[in-house]
Amino acid sequence: MAVYTEVSDADLAAFLDSYDLGCVRSLKGIAEGVENSNYLLHTEKGSFILTLYEKRVEEENLPFFLGLMDHLCARGINCPRPVRARSGAALGKLSGRPAAIVTFLEGICHNRPTVSDCSRLGGALARLHQAAADFKGSRDNSLSLAAWPRLFAPVACCADDVEPGLAAAVAAELGFLEANWPRNLPRGIIHADLFPDNVLFLGEEAPGLIDFYFACADDLAYDLAICLNAWCFEADGAFNVRKAAALFEAYQRVRPLTPLEIAAIPVLSRGAALRFALTRLIDWLHVPAGALVHPKNPIEYMQKLRFHQKITDVRELGLAQ
Amino acid sequence: MAVYTEVSDADLAAFLDSYDLGCVRSLKGIAEGVENSNYLLHTEKGSFILTLYEKRVEEENLPFFLGLMDHLCARGINCPRPVRARSGAALGKLSGRPAAIVTFLEGICHNRPTVSDCSRLGGALARLHQAAADFKGSRDNSLSLAAWPRLFAPVACCADDVEPGLAAAVAAELGFLEANWPRNLPRGIIHADLFPDNVLFLGEEAPGLIDFYFACADDLAYDLAICLNAWCFEADGAFNVRKAAALFEAYQRVRPLTPLEIAAIPVLSRGAALRFALTRLIDWLHVPAGALVHPKNPIEYMQKLRFHQKITDVRELGLAQ
Repeated sequence: MAVYTEVSDADLAAFLDSYDLGCVRSLKGIAEGVENSNYLLHTEKGSFILTLYEKRVEEENLPFFLGLMDHLCARGINCPRPVRARSGAALGKLSGRPAAIVTFLEGICHNRPTVSDCSRLGGALARLHQAAADFKGSRDNSLSLAAWPRLFAPVACCADDVEPGLAAAVAAELGFLEANWPRNLPRGIIHADLFPDNVLFLGEEAPGLIDFYFACADDLAYDLAICLNAWCFEADGAFNVRKAAALFEAYQRVRPLTPLEIAAIPVLSRGAALRFALTRLIDWLHVPAGALVHPKNPIEYMQKLRFHQKITDVRELGLAQ
Repeated sequence: MAVYTEVSDADLAAFLDSYDLGCVRSLKGIAEGVENSNYLLHTEKGSFILTLYEKRVEEENLPFFLGLMDHLCARGINCPRPVRARSGAALGKLSGRPAAIVTFLEGICHNRPTVSDCSRLGGALARLHQAAADFKGSRDNSLSLAAWPRLFAPVACCADDVEPGLAAAVAAELGFLEANWPRNLPRGIIHADLFPDNVLFLGEEAPGLIDFYFACADDLAYDLAICLNAWCFEADGAFNVRKAAALFEAYQRVRPLTPLEIAAIPVLSRGAALRFALTRLIDWLHVPAGALVHPKNPIEYMQKLRFHQKITDVRELGLAQ
């Protein structure tokens, strides 16, 4: 949610010279995407998103992200399509930053998703997993189980300033997850950040999926666990089992889960809750100077974690065994 | 440059029910306007800007701003036109805030304006002054000479932390301006904030003028002095007399300045420089928690002030006497 790099009209004109997009009609920095600078660009050829990749995104991963979007579009997934310069390159340089243009997706986020939204999400997520199955690129999940202790170590000392007892709770959960993380689940490319603000609804169309900059190879069911946390709790923190059931049911209509995956959902959900609690904790404690991201409260995800810690049967999560 | 108030899809749908704009196609928070939350709204009827007015804008002034834009559009000025709800109201309520929809202006800001841009600005500013002449509304300038000592008092103690000697320099200039401010100049409605980011260029059309939320009744030539400061200095701080001459010349082709106004430009320019130095100093020292505005360095405007303090003849500013 930021514009970190300002683009001058002269730099923009020079950059667009290498594209077949016609003249610029407008450029507005948009408050979207935590990691990069995003602009809504109108040209004679239509609406586009111009992204300047900031330091937190590793440049060597950009071909993976852009290639994945290309691949998914070709498979009929409703997601942004990278626009190529006349040279054929999807990635260029603007104002000293790597930069790319993708097609603009219409649709609006449903910040308070309904049961029906969760159902549409489930179908879209399963189709995404299937469409990515034959994508040749790969990328390790840099925010997986193995990374969490390293993420936590530098903030462990301050965690109790956010909530008394938080450091011990995280340390205990890290131990539990390390001992109980499922092995040998079906893997593939996952979105890894499919929160409501990354899903655009428009009429009855398949929802548009955006912001692929956490996509990576991981357990497919872990993507569902991320969505369960992000979509199936109410604003007051209550879990909505109808939303969860709708998510799982719609997902499985496209890609049925294996018995191992179903059994793993509670632990994966604990892991997903901890992963977002951890990165939010870090952002909360390190608001970058001038960068102007609204930090999100990490405690929301600790509360979700506590909910998952009490689950004894997947039916409590809306899953039929 | 911020989105302070988040708009839920449900609140937006309810708000738009009272307009004839068709279905929402997308809504993006844009990084534009320091005082308010701005969204770029696409509906079936086209592109619009949705503004939620935040606390720093006084609600009783909103009919003046919206009425002024309406009036200027009717007089052929290229500026946003308030869109009325079916009730006829230009102002509504959204997410607990006063809110309005205006038409979207295409065009891009020229952050490094050329001589030609300054000329086009001068003509547009003069036409704005003429078009506003028969506008019935009025509003005092809450950031005029009388307000500056009150603005400065609470930050005087910290000013030297920003630059040693700053407090004394501002106090001395306030004394000079109080003693030398011109009286009896032609008055009218001024934009009062016509910086390059509020002027949208598109081909050869008259530049689009946006962000009327500082507009007020004041000396017309003071608006020119604001533009002189904002448009006619290079990034390295050097004054560009060709840009100034182009600005004044194009303005006077539409509305010739009186001899009194010409003689007043140096003092008005000192006042304009101090006014922006003061509000930037305040923003610099009081970055609002969570509000996420990039504060601009006040020293840039103190340097412009120092330049103006040395002027002994209006010809140095590109004005023919």
